[in-house]
Amino acid sequence: MSASVVLLAGGVGGARLAHGLQAHLGGALTVIVNTADDVERHGLLVSPDHDTVMYTLAGIDNREWGWGLAGETFAAAAMLERYGEESWFRLGDRDLATHIVRTARLRRGDRPTDIARDLQRALGVAAAILPMSDQPVRTEVRTDDGWLAFQDYFVRLHQEPAVREVRFVGIEDAQATPEVEAALEYTSLIVVAPSNPFVSVRPILAVAGIEAGVQTARSRGVPVVAVSGIVGGAALKGPADRMLVSLGSEASALGVARQYTGIADVFVLDRVDAELEAPIRALGMRTLVTDTIMIGDGGRQRLAGEILDAVRPRLSAS
Amino acid sequence: MSASVVLLAGGVGGARLAHGLQAHLGGALTVIVNTADDVERHGLLVSPDHDTVMYTLAGIDNREWGWGLAGETFAAAAMLERYGEESWFRLGDRDLATHIVRTARLRRGDRPTDIARDLQRALGVAAAILPMSDQPVRTEVRTDDGWLAFQDYFVRLHQEPAVREVRFVGIEDAQATPEVEAALEYTSLIVVAPSNPFVSVRPILAVAGIEAGVQTARSRGVPVVAVSGIVGGAALKGPADRMLVSLGSEASALGVARQYTGIADVFVLDRVDAELEAPIRALGMRTLVTDTIMIGDGGRQRLAGEILDAVRPRLSAS
Repeated sequence: MSASVVLLAGGVGGARLAHGLQAHLGGALTVIVNTADDVERHGLLVSPDHDTVMYTLAGIDNREWGWGLAGETFAAAAMLERYGEESWFRLGDRDLATHIVRTARLRRGDRPTDIARDLQRALGVAAAILPMSDQPVRTEVRTDDGWLAFQDYFVRLHQEPAVREVRFVGIEDAQATPEVEAALEYTSLIVVAPSNPFVSVRPILAVAGIEAGVQTARSRGVPVVAVSGIVGGAALKGPADRMLVSLGSEASALGVARQYTGIADVFVLDRVDAELEAPIRALGMRTLVTDTIMIGDGGRQRLAGEILDAVRPRLSAS
Repeated sequence: MSASVVLLAGGVGGARLAHGLQAHLGGALTVIVNTADDVERHGLLVSPDHDTVMYTLAGIDNREWGWGLAGETFAAAAMLERYGEESWFRLGDRDLATHIVRTARLRRGDRPTDIARDLQRALGVAAAILPMSDQPVRTEVRTDDGWLAFQDYFVRLHQEPAVREVRFVGIEDAQATPEVEAALEYTSLIVVAPSNPFVSVRPILAVAGIEAGVQTARSRGVPVVAVSGIVGGAALKGPADRMLVSLGSEASALGVARQYTGIADVFVLDRVDAELEAPIRALGMRTLVTDTIMIGDGGRQRLAGEILDAVRPRLSAS
């Protein structure tokens, strides 16, 4: 398949589906990645979702842990702790190199998109991973104790407080980059990864130009396929299930599908949730019921292949 | 001995004598350290002489290598190389933490002296290690191919080119800090470490207020003891022997002593150079002939003790 495909993605779940898609598409895959959970630690800019996708597409992700880099060590982190630095966001030694290079180039005035491209090329990534914007956006969540920076909630507080509201600080000034606009303009398929709808996918769509670009593509007949990150009522990773409930929806594939009403044309849900097919179709989406849990390279490629197969007639026509 | 002692020091040789002195003096030792070989790498400020002295005084220096940190690893450096960063100045993982904290605090506007103090305290250093100035100074050396930044010459070119001239960029704007001024004002003894006279000791003395502070102390009867870093005509470490020749002097303890005419009252030279005692005395210095090569903790403490003993009558009188 030579048609280009765009994936909207957050971290781990997005990275796995991206890896599966890259196996089919190579350089024809463009991942637009959430940067609203970026965080500055020890004076360095950390871009967790971008880097998770990058390491995974480079084949150097740590499969044992499910995050970080293969063979990662934490010698610098131990020394940072000795210096009294906060230790709740531990950065591995290899990972630190990424943040050091990124930060040095940002301080020289380089664009985040250009920096990301060079990091990816150095690691041999075939796909393009585009930050959703070159402007900084920072997710904050309101808990019963007030507003928290996202990583404070996510890492420091282990996602324990109930999230009552989500906002994206800086979103008014964030714009789709020329690269993101071009990817949406020339794509034949848009896939929404099984990432958290509220804090991974929503900030991407909230960037000026991105949801409009998705809708323009749809009006050209480009299908949008969204994949549920909730299986059997539970999030595969992270707090999406609890956020669905605390934000007034329900912890199910149907709850996820409701977040994508008016955006997704096809909704992919797991076999264990097959009974939700009818209510999801009632939202105006076609459905693909399959195994959505991606085990190993084979599982990633299989799910990616099934998604591509499901829309192949549309792709050929476009 | 309760009287306070000031050591003017560069890197490895200075660190060893500082360690010996700290064993005798504890917190009564103040090291004024050269910062003119500081260098920015990967957007981080590296302060090699300060950090060598700090790690040595904290007892976490790598005795096997003679530089860097015990148990050091290079995972981040390997990743930085993969990203195409220049690799001639490799930074260890633990060492990186030091530069990350320093750089983050500098960007927040903190004083180098305050940052250094906090790093030292976190590592449990008893002595005070003071940067010679809070203003940046950068040594450059003129070779037959023109002017080079110091670390370009020292690390990248392995000190191979002959040095024709030395300059300290920024020295006009560098001032002694209040901490350095106070240390010189209240000291009972000033020791010049067996460091390179041209690129370790000279930049310290060239900072506005420091040589004047040393001379004011001498006028109060405070002895200045300089230790030769040249033994048997060769530098214990680094290019001091070749620089003595290329800068028009001679590669000997006498050549070193000549650099300290008008500054040092006592000159410490090795037994193998005993025949140079008379010409050094002719420069107007008293001499202490002993074993100057510091082997292990014992060797460091012995040399430090002999220096303190040699001036003890003066110290008691002051």
